[in-house]
Amino acid sequence: MSSTESPPSRTGEIRHDAVFDRWVLISPARSRRPSDFKSRSPASSSNTNPKPSCAFCAGHERECAPEIFRLPPASTTDWKIRVIENLYPALSRDAEPSPSPVDGLLAAAPGRCAVTGFGFHDVVIETPDHSVRLPDLSLAEVGEVLLAHKQRILQLARLGSIKYVQVFKNYGASAGASMAHSHSQIMGLPLVPPLVSTRLDSMKKFYDMTGKCCLCEAWSEDILVSETAHFFAIVPFAASYPFEVWIVPRDHTNHFHEIDNEKAVDLGGLLKLVLQKLSKQLNDPPYNFMIQTAPLALSSSCAHYTHWFLQIIPHLSVIGGFEIGTGCFINPVFPEDAAMVLREADCS
Amino acid sequence: MSSTESPPSRTGEIRHDAVFDRWVLISPARSRRPSDFKSRSPASSSNTNPKPSCAFCAGHERECAPEIFRLPPASTTDWKIRVIENLYPALSRDAEPSPSPVDGLLAAAPGRCAVTGFGFHDVVIETPDHSVRLPDLSLAEVGEVLLAHKQRILQLARLGSIKYVQVFKNYGASAGASMAHSHSQIMGLPLVPPLVSTRLDSMKKFYDMTGKCCLCEAWSEDILVSETAHFFAIVPFAASYPFEVWIVPRDHTNHFHEIDNEKAVDLGGLLKLVLQKLSKQLNDPPYNFMIQTAPLALSSSCAHYTHWFLQIIPHLSVIGGFEIGTGCFINPVFPEDAAMVLREADCS
Ligand SMILES: Nc1ncnc2c1ncn2[C@@H]1O[C@H](COP(=O)(O)OP(=O)(O)O[C@H]2O[C@H](CO)[C@@H](O)[C@H](O)[C@H]2O)[C@@H](O)[C@H]1O
Ligand SMILES: Nc1ncnc2c1ncn2[C@@H]1O[C@H](COP(=O)(O)OP(=O)(O)O[C@H]2O[C@H](CO)[C@@H](O)[C@H](O)[C@H]2O)[C@@H](O)[C@H]1O
Repeated sequence: MSSTESPPSRTGEIRHDAVFDRWVLISPARSRRPSDFKSRSPASSSNTNPKPSCAFCAGHERECAPEIFRLPPASTTDWKIRVIENLYPALSRDAEPSPSPVDGLLAAAPGRCAVTGFGFHDVVIETPDHSVRLPDLSLAEVGEVLLAHKQRILQLARLGSIKYVQVFKNYGASAGASMAHSHSQIMGLPLVPPLVSTRLDSMKKFYDMTGKCCLCEAWSEDILVSETAHFFAIVPFAASYPFEVWIVPRDHTNHFHEIDNEKAVDLGGLLKLVLQKLSKQLNDPPYNFMIQTAPLALSSSCAHYTHWFLQIIPHLSVIGGFEIGTGCFINPVFPEDAAMVLREADCS
Repeated sequence: MSSTESPPSRTGEIRHDAVFDRWVLISPARSRRPSDFKSRSPASSSNTNPKPSCAFCAGHERECAPEIFRLPPASTTDWKIRVIENLYPALSRDAEPSPSPVDGLLAAAPGRCAVTGFGFHDVVIETPDHSVRLPDLSLAEVGEVLLAHKQRILQLARLGSIKYVQVFKNYGASAGASMAHSHSQIMGLPLVPPLVSTRLDSMKKFYDMTGKCCLCEAWSEDILVSETAHFFAIVPFAASYPFEVWIVPRDHTNHFHEIDNEKAVDLGGLLKLVLQKLSKQLNDPPYNFMIQTAPLALSSSCAHYTHWFLQIIPHLSVIGGFEIGTGCFINPVFPEDAAMVLREADCS
């Protein structure tokens, strides 16, 4: 924030996020008007010239790490989606899975506990065409990308050694993307990650207090962005990031990979629309999306309170020392205001 | 990572961080050689011309929000450090503190819990001179900056309404700094932030397993960067970020603000040295530092296992969807390798 802008008068709040059990400082005094909150580094600026040497483009398949599957399955040069191994994987599918359960290892070496870097790290090439972005696809095609995620999760779920699968997308350099060609990533992890445990604990706390699932209760007109037959998109009440959007299934469902073809197309349409709205209102911002689902093995008691959702975070502000130190976020835009800006965007 | 670099052969590990209870993927296959891991956007590139209009410069005091104190206290034009109110505060010192304890409020409105945005947000101007960076100060002067932090914490601690004080510094635009003039920030919070609770729980777990404080046990030759009479600097065994450094007091101490003048100068010297080493080996990278201390009110049982430290994180890689989704980090540089690169940097 430069010293020349004058702060608006609406007073801030500290809101509690019931899904992640964290506090968010909603601080309008830090921002300009919500509608002025555009990205200063649009993602598209880094992807204007199609790169003839891009390994993800059709015709360059041999420059990639091995393919896991493609869609349509029998396609040759006319594939639409490819799921491949990551050439620089953060985890190795060839490492030995750790033999003992993690808790036992921790007790044996509490200050220096390490396990092998076993796991899966795959890339989903979402289109053969370098110049096409995810929301440029038709809603059915976005649905097919989501079904490719599902298919790969089901494969990984068959391995007992994988406990959690994280699907995510980085779009634009400041959201982490090193490849400009439209893609997402899938990581199969040998343990349940800390934020997933925190999320489950927090949703359990809400359930214990109310007898209800906190995401089943999250729909509200003032924070609504858009909705379809099977999903609704909201700016969550205690959004950590300005213009953060969650797409939530209406039905209480634990796992993303329970989605069927009809719902995948429905979700594809809503995801496409939300990405178009963000792009239009915020100048094509870099973003991440994460599929927030449940661990592969889930006890029947957890099933009452875990509910998957798709979290979309545009990159409009920088994480600084306060957020790294405290785990609290500072959001300069009231979620109700952000929802209104997105609701009003006409992308038909 | 571009597709033209070939990955090295050392295999990865998944390491457990006993202070934050999180898992870190140490993934050398993602990186080049550790010594090549330089910042591509040195912070200094954004601060070459002294800005005549900078409100933090000597002579521009009247462009700032009100002063809280200055050092030396009776100085007029020749001040060395000023602690001022933040002009665009994320929390408001004029708001009413929330009357009830937070747990009660949560139970009353579990999905829509909000409290007033009460709290303190201050700025510490670390030098009157626009062109001077923190490590350009003498070790005694860096020590005085730390004593200014201490003095302000002690003031906030006298207010019963403040539960935790976060001191942090953002250096360089990609670490969040919007002002180039050397400064740090202090926020007084009406609640204990989530990451602080997680840290305390995790250190308690270690203590319950071993009877020891995990930071008292953290010193180790292979991860040592440098040490002084009262402090040691290490790259932690399960560093979340490449070249992350922790400066830890040798004596088991709960609160940063217990530091005395002699130790502050000692710490000032070590902080200056570590920042110089990072700058030299990594091309003046943007960084954050956070003072990780205990809540102001601490039960006597917690005192056994909480131990403050100063966490320094250079910004060399981008947080992507994987980290946001899981709370796990991917660190491409083995902590032992990073420590060696920093240990060997000659900054005398
Ligand atoms: N020829 C080829 N065949 C197969 N795969 C290829 C390939 N060429 C490149 N790749 C892989 O394609 C992936 C592209 O992924 P992204 O651009 O989304 O981000 P990346 O994983 O690099 O890092 C971002 O996301 C991660 C995870 O969130 C963060 O840790 C990191 O800092 C951030 O920059 C890379 O993982 C790369 O290894
Ligand atoms: N004349 C004046 N008088 C008094 N104060 C003045 C002033 N002019 C400016 N200021 C204040 O000085 C501070 C400078 O702080 P930094 O440059 O470290 O980062 P900032 O707080 O802007 O945001 C970074 O840090 C925060 C917290 O980590 C992140 O939320 C954010 O995204 C990131 O960019 C700002 O907070 C600003 O409000």
